Amino acid sequence: MNPSIELVSTGSELLSGRTVNRHASVLGDHLRRLGLALTRDTTVPDNLEAIEEAVASALRRANVVLVSGGLGPTCDDITRDALARLLGSKVITDEAALAALRERFARMGRAVTPQAELQARIVAGGTALSNSVGAAPGERIERDGKTLFVLPGPPDEFLAVLTEHVLPWLREHGAGSGALRERMFLVCGLGESAIMELLEKNGFAPAGLDVAYSAAPGRIELRLLATGATDEELERAAAQVRRLLGPNVFAEERETMEEVVGRLLRRCGRTLATAESCTGGLLGSRITAVSGSSDYYAGGVVAYANRVKQAVLGVEEEVLAREGAVSEAVARQMAEGVRRLLRTSYGLSITGVAGPSGGTPEKPVGLVYIALAETEGTWVKANRFDGPRARVRDWSAQIALDMLRRRLLEFPPDSTIA
Amino acid sequence: MNPSIELVSTGSELLSGRTVNRHASVLGDHLRRLGLALTRDTTVPDNLEAIEEAVASALRRANVVLVSGGLGPTCDDITRDALARLLGSKVITDEAALAALRERFARMGRAVTPQAELQARIVAGGTALSNSVGAAPGERIERDGKTLFVLPGPPDEFLAVLTEHVLPWLREHGAGSGALRERMFLVCGLGESAIMELLEKNGFAPAGLDVAYSAAPGRIELRLLATGATDEELERAAAQVRRLLGPNVFAEERETMEEVVGRLLRRCGRTLATAESCTGGLLGSRITAVSGSSDYYAGGVVAYANRVKQAVLGVEEEVLAREGAVSEAVARQMAEGVRRLLRTSYGLSITGVAGPSGGTPEKPVGLVYIALAETEGTWVKANRFDGPRARVRDWSAQIALDMLRRRLLEFPPDSTIA
Repeated sequence: MNPSIELVSTGSELLSGRTVNRHASVLGDHLRRLGLALTRDTTVPDNLEAIEEAVASALRRANVVLVSGGLGPTCDDITRDALARLLGSKVITDEAALAALRERFARMGRAVTPQAELQARIVAGGTALSNSVGAAPGERIERDGKTLFVLPGPPDEFLAVLTEHVLPWLREHGAGSGALRERMFLVCGLGESAIMELLEKNGFAPAGLDVAYSAAPGRIELRLLATGATDEELERAAAQVRRLLGPNVFAEERETMEEVVGRLLRRCGRTLATAESCTGGLLGSRITAVSGSSDYYAGGVVAYANRVKQAVLGVEEEVLAREGAVSEAVARQMAEGVRRLLRTSYGLSITGVAGPSGGTPEKPVGLVYIALAETEGTWVKANRFDGPRARVRDWSAQIALDMLRRRLLEFPPDSTIA
Repeated sequence: MNPSIELVSTGSELLSGRTVNRHASVLGDHLRRLGLALTRDTTVPDNLEAIEEAVASALRRANVVLVSGGLGPTCDDITRDALARLLGSKVITDEAALAALRERFARMGRAVTPQAELQARIVAGGTALSNSVGAAPGERIERDGKTLFVLPGPPDEFLAVLTEHVLPWLREHGAGSGALRERMFLVCGLGESAIMELLEKNGFAPAGLDVAYSAAPGRIELRLLATGATDEELERAAAQVRRLLGPNVFAEERETMEEVVGRLLRRCGRTLATAESCTGGLLGSRITAVSGSSDYYAGGVVAYANRVKQAVLGVEEEVLAREGAVSEAVARQMAEGVRRLLRTSYGLSITGVAGPSGGTPEKPVGLVYIALAETEGTWVKANRFDGPRARVRDWSAQIALDMLRRRLLEFPPDSTIA
């Protein structure tokens, strides 16, 4: 039988508009993949009574409760004290955690202050959970058949303790034995409603399956969740989606476009260089977010000023003057220029109007040219993205990577069905 | 006297990892500007009992409760029913809301279906609140001296009903007459515990002030919130923090490091070029996230492969061989090389081991050299960052920008007090 699980998020900044609380979403996603459900998140400020009361009522309802935040070294980090009060226990220093903290500071060549050492404290009676990315350990406390997990608040530390300690514990304790029966498709090149229509038009109406969508720029997540359906029916539906969406599906697991493209480049033994204008390095940054990307990514040029497009990438002054920096011709010369300069298999370029300023009737905000240069020639795609600057830039990097992905799979780089 | 205010967010998608709940953050920010505080957010799934219970206990604690979500036309939109049950009332159709809904559909040239008309229902006894951007109205319900607001879930509709109805009501009812008295400092170059000790060591112990911290790589947010203190006491405390933290404070309002550096570059009429290895374009991407950055940012080179460091930036092969790509000498030559190549006032470079792979005993993961080249010479700073790849990269870009900021303010680029 699966446990009921609640989260209590502590932190005044989560209720003051300073920080968006992503813990519930991150935790919920991991639990869902285990076939479990998060039944509630209660977000409270850094206040002893509020934390104590919220955890107490969560423990009344659920048999597993996670508490996040308030484990830092400063005066507003009071989660331990609130829990000690609630459990009639006290706060002690965990020697192993203290040793790990000192070793971590030494490794960084930083002096350990008494203040910093406060982070090695836990609630007496619990078990410290090592934190691989931060100073404050998490903790597991068993009480009256309920299990209380305490996790640090910073997102990467929360995630580390969650995946290294909490999820393994849940698995060991037989949680999610009825694993989730779900298929996921990550789609680029079709919008949410275009996907829906395409599926419906082709009679996609699976019984006993929930179909859920969530959308980000150039990344639609389509999920088939088997509620009533058998495994065979789920597989049949998945095969139908796969066939109908074709090359627009870039992943069937939680993978980023840059991971997919990286795998393909490595497999094909090809190399890549980038030339960016409006994205200013975002494309290169995403490619190199993947560890090991040096195997296929040589580097790139951020040609933000026109003189850099000319001097470094060899874009012709006369073309710049005639066509303008945001044009098919300049995108083409940027991609070919960087490929020549860095001697790679592919050159990928982006030039556009990210906005909010700089738009004209002929060259509106959101107009972005993306070019892919290779031995056989150069593809250029004109795109029109909408939304604020950050969104236009995200779209641009995503679509550029998708063009290369399609090419590596030997589809036409702009083979969208839409 | 100010009301205590709680939010109950309904929606299974908020707990399954599909959607991040931003309502608490948006609401909290607006309340803070009114001098009010959101005291709790309870997020529950689309479940009658859960919604009913959560709203009931919120009404016990607070005198104003907002409920969001579950007002749409589909079967999982059950918030009205849960509230009717709780209040012993029933769900009725609001004629004005229905007329508005029909008029809105007509305007969009869409047929009104009975399904769609379900959105014009409210809980009997309350007042419908017009929704200027969506079909479902909000509602205000008065009960036993408490006020319950019901708001639609889609972020833009939530915001519209909040700003057009809820906030005006709060103002009318004298809430937040005492606007927020707060000072904020964004700090780079000192850790959370280092800041706290520095303040305490210098006898910083302000009475009637709450001091709160929140931390991100190279960005500690320190806030002074006047609870008991007078305006003069708040200003005195702020002046003391300013004096003690000195150049480590990079902003006193919500500003990014790249915005601060951009302002300084523009003011000084200087230009910048970047040369990135392990950050792969992240630095350039952050600089160009600021609209208008073309005024001072020429562009850069992502020198990921060593041959690019040589061929494009002119790093000497012999230096690369002797010192390695992650070294003070290479950082220096990268910064000087890109400054020469793009003919800018400053050249800013980053080369390091972002990890998780690639570390050695001499050059461990997290070792990052950052160099700033200018007419008078080149500064190089060796850094040791901690955590996963993304964190090391974020740190690196932040500290690089901070070096330039300090230089533009004519502090030594590594003038940390720590």
